Amino acid sequence: MAEKNKNRRFTSKRDVKAKTNRRYSKANLQKKGRAEKNKPSVKIAFLGGLNEIGKNITVFECEGDIVLLDCGMAFPDGDMLGVDLVIPDFSYIEQNIDKVKGMVVTHGHEDHIGGIPFLLSKMNIPIYGTPLTIGLLSNKLKEHSLFNSAKLNVVKAGGRVKLGCFEAEFIHVNHSIPDACAIALHTPAGVVVHSGDFKIDCTPFVGNMIDLHSFARLGHHGVLAFLCESTNADRKGYTATEQTVTSSLDSLFREAYKNRIIIATFASNVNRVQQIIDCAEKYDRKVAFSGRSMVNYMKVAEELGYLKVPKNMLIDIDMLSRYSPEQIVLITTGSQGEPMSALSRMAYSDHRKVSVGEGDFIIISANPIPGNEKTVGNVVDELLKRGCRVIYEGMYDVHVSGHACQEELKILQRLVNPKYFIPVHGEQKHLRKNAELALSLGMDKKNIYIGDIGKCIEINEDYMKELPPVPAGKVFVDGLGVGDVGSIVLRDRKHLAQDGLIIIVASLDVYDGHVISGPDIVSRGFVYVRESEELLDEIRAHALNILEDCADRNIKEWGIIKNRIKDDVSKMIGQKTGRAPMILPILQEV
Amino acid sequence: MAEKNKNRRFTSKRDVKAKTNRRYSKANLQKKGRAEKNKPSVKIAFLGGLNEIGKNITVFECEGDIVLLDCGMAFPDGDMLGVDLVIPDFSYIEQNIDKVKGMVVTHGHEDHIGGIPFLLSKMNIPIYGTPLTIGLLSNKLKEHSLFNSAKLNVVKAGGRVKLGCFEAEFIHVNHSIPDACAIALHTPAGVVVHSGDFKIDCTPFVGNMIDLHSFARLGHHGVLAFLCESTNADRKGYTATEQTVTSSLDSLFREAYKNRIIIATFASNVNRVQQIIDCAEKYDRKVAFSGRSMVNYMKVAEELGYLKVPKNMLIDIDMLSRYSPEQIVLITTGSQGEPMSALSRMAYSDHRKVSVGEGDFIIISANPIPGNEKTVGNVVDELLKRGCRVIYEGMYDVHVSGHACQEELKILQRLVNPKYFIPVHGEQKHLRKNAELALSLGMDKKNIYIGDIGKCIEINEDYMKELPPVPAGKVFVDGLGVGDVGSIVLRDRKHLAQDGLIIIVASLDVYDGHVISGPDIVSRGFVYVRESEELLDEIRAHALNILEDCADRNIKEWGIIKNRIKDDVSKMIGQKTGRAPMILPILQEV
Repeated sequence: MAEKNKNRRFTSKRDVKAKTNRRYSKANLQKKGRAEKNKPSVKIAFLGGLNEIGKNITVFECEGDIVLLDCGMAFPDGDMLGVDLVIPDFSYIEQNIDKVKGMVVTHGHEDHIGGIPFLLSKMNIPIYGTPLTIGLLSNKLKEHSLFNSAKLNVVKAGGRVKLGCFEAEFIHVNHSIPDACAIALHTPAGVVVHSGDFKIDCTPFVGNMIDLHSFARLGHHGVLAFLCESTNADRKGYTATEQTVTSSLDSLFREAYKNRIIIATFASNVNRVQQIIDCAEKYDRKVAFSGRSMVNYMKVAEELGYLKVPKNMLIDIDMLSRYSPEQIVLITTGSQGEPMSALSRMAYSDHRKVSVGEGDFIIISANPIPGNEKTVGNVVDELLKRGCRVIYEGMYDVHVSGHACQEELKILQRLVNPKYFIPVHGEQKHLRKNAELALSLGMDKKNIYIGDIGKCIEINEDYMKELPPVPAGKVFVDGLGVGDVGSIVLRDRKHLAQDGLIIIVASLDVYDGHVISGPDIVSRGFVYVRESEELLDEIRAHALNILEDCADRNIKEWGIIKNRIKDDVSKMIGQKTGRAPMILPILQEV
Repeated sequence: MAEKNKNRRFTSKRDVKAKTNRRYSKANLQKKGRAEKNKPSVKIAFLGGLNEIGKNITVFECEGDIVLLDCGMAFPDGDMLGVDLVIPDFSYIEQNIDKVKGMVVTHGHEDHIGGIPFLLSKMNIPIYGTPLTIGLLSNKLKEHSLFNSAKLNVVKAGGRVKLGCFEAEFIHVNHSIPDACAIALHTPAGVVVHSGDFKIDCTPFVGNMIDLHSFARLGHHGVLAFLCESTNADRKGYTATEQTVTSSLDSLFREAYKNRIIIATFASNVNRVQQIIDCAEKYDRKVAFSGRSMVNYMKVAEELGYLKVPKNMLIDIDMLSRYSPEQIVLITTGSQGEPMSALSRMAYSDHRKVSVGEGDFIIISANPIPGNEKTVGNVVDELLKRGCRVIYEGMYDVHVSGHACQEELKILQRLVNPKYFIPVHGEQKHLRKNAELALSLGMDKKNIYIGDIGKCIEINEDYMKELPPVPAGKVFVDGLGVGDVGSIVLRDRKHLAQDGLIIIVASLDVYDGHVISGPDIVSRGFVYVRESEELLDEIRAHALNILEDCADRNIKEWGIIKNRIKDDVSKMIGQKTGRAPMILPILQEV
């Protein structure tokens, strides 16, 4: 490997030489005048997603080749009524599809792979990822009937892939899912490193420590830009090792020796499940899984060898009744209080197979994601009311984050030692905190770039500049529809949700416009009809007056008639009830 | 005062003697046999509210007299679509109105007084509270045109009020609003103490420290039951003194010497506003208020002498442009990211009078209330994007809680030294944490009662027992309507919010049932109509087929026809779109 010759450390601007390029040879570089003019550069664009930039799709372009990194989905905010998923806007990729050489995927979490089925249903781009990542993605593509056509490629951590003028190097990192990687893109313009999601765990429960040596090697030879995740950039110190969870779980298993144990965690946290299974083995308990995604993830993880389950330990959830409580560990979804999840159903006595109560020892081995605090709290409350013992939040060390805190972020940045620092993954406050860390390490402010959805920059050894924005943003998935729910539909849903609706329907004489039938009043989501008949009668009388008045005056323009009904009835209802339901006059001619 | 003679310390069951009773004299007590039979008791019932018990109305009954404590409102949860406020169910009070002697109010926060106008509009109960509490309540009652008829009574901290066989003693506590009190109810059955919301601040910024001596006196003489707030029962240690905020604000004012300063805090946190005003005076800045509730609260607080503003310091928000940024402090609402609040409007460039950007130094002097983390985060993000410097959450000590942490809770419990301990104010997890503190202090488990909405207990020196539940729960206020929005209306709103609606309207021949006009399809909140014309045409054709088929078969029962349309169209839409909009067939006969 000619690694040492191909890269040199960035000590000054003149010293920067990026050389993995076939088309941009060493000989050319030495012809200085020409080289300066044609110095290659990398364009980086941030597409789609919610508020967190660079979380969904990041686009890297160099010398006419494009490599994509990750393609996630997000769950809708509270005001995106009825929306199931949010995916990125793919139009920039569609516009540039001829340039796209492939997509590299850092790890198998939904916010990194969840958008891929929607992308592949439009464009069949080759995908590269580690075994577990591709395994989880395969499962997902099968559900969308896209698996057979998909071009999936497994790359082991440490491996490299040629993608046009890019070479993508996969670097093992620690995270809350196995087989997670950072990506180093070797380009004609220099090396660009993307951290993916990571933390530094010197004593992980399963597998190796993050491959710091590779980051060190890259940093030693010179890195043009470092895109670094920022999720925990506002947290001081270090994320504790997974081993702390092991010892907490062990002591809780001892404490609960008489109880059934139910543990909720993220379905994707395979190593956490492994910890629980190891504990179950030690304390001679059977394990059952509850929740569809838990069952699915564990199936893939076991098949690929990421989860090791002792023989005869797993039992089906239907078999629970054959064992006494102290022989059981139930591993379940619902750690975020999701309304339809297994744990929520148990809490609200809505689970078909498990009912909880006194004698149940419930451990929530996860922290609430911001925005979920209240739903998690409600589930805990219900469980407590039923007499369960519940271990949640900071009560014991039953969870550690999957993301690096400030000291880890600083160490990785120092190792990578980039010319440009680009914080990604996080809201603005996290990005800025991460930027502050870079400043504290002596990085020049002008070499730090804080991006946003749709922003695009161009970098090379000489400059970093912002280019015009690219099409980017949120696309809503509702049922089978992708992108057919937008602001108007959402506005209507919000209006309907707020005060309901009143439909006023009448049949008018085709000749003279007088009312032949109706007006009938139908309301939904407005008031209890039975208790408000008087009000509805008034609305009916009011509408009839307007219709007859219009007929008398020979007003035949339905737009005008409907607007009069809307305005007058709105006003009347506002005065009487203080509400503003949607009012829908519907007229028919007979 | 015959305090010393009237009460003795509870050391054993036999030693318990509660004696503020007129009807239950010392002489009677000595006739042991008779006394045992007629021993008076106190009934405590927890009405209404959201998940936090005892936060809205607590009912105390003794010997046929009832005293109410607080009557708050809550803001709706995310799934209470369109609901403006949530108030307690008053029916238990209505049923027992003849016994009600009055309501004592601990302090002026919305979750303690916000329900009073709705109560007084039904029953004119006399209200007792401290000057600021009554001042804020008066303002509120004026808005509801209830002020003139209301029977409001001012009691200073330390004062007592006779209410039937009760005597209510108001005891000064520290909290995040001035003039907050605990209440000791002296009853024939013994003394019952309710902590209200409190913390122990030995060096408050304004006013006196919590009146620990009174709690000590009560505890010394014997307390039957202690209802103690639990908001921070899961937080270790102590809540920091308000003085820490003073010094943080001071250093931030120095740091921001070139900037306009904007500080968001709770409108009710009069002492915090005083701190900001003192800082403004020190650094020679003018102060403007933004947000209706901020302006209202400060007006009342200043009138009653709880807020001291130097002459010529306050300016109207319209005058901002006459001063340079470094001459200004803007104190605003919106610390919880409320969508319509002043700070949110600034963040989203929707404020009519203030536009923010680089050069603005924004301090959020409050922590997000659980459930508001995300909205606050979004506001911070927007402000950061506009180039503002933003100080939020734990970045500096710009906020301290108004509630006691574990060490303070233990101290007050030790001072009060009750026979029965009843944790209140909080979700189940908080109540249980507070109960654990009591256990750790040696309290017998059977003397601790963890309640819930609608629960009712009876206590006296001999026993504590649960009585049958009382009517209690949430009543929704939507616009002017109180209680006319319930589960059916909410279910419809949720359905409408989820996938919108499709209206299918047709006029049928009165004789043969054939379609004369329509069916017309109207949809709202379902899909973009323009892009889905084909789908709507299919629905129309489908509905027409069903209607004609019914006419041919001579099916005239509209219920049957409508159900067929609903079922068939639902199925078709489900297959084609994966959605389940509300389907409303409307038929008219002509």
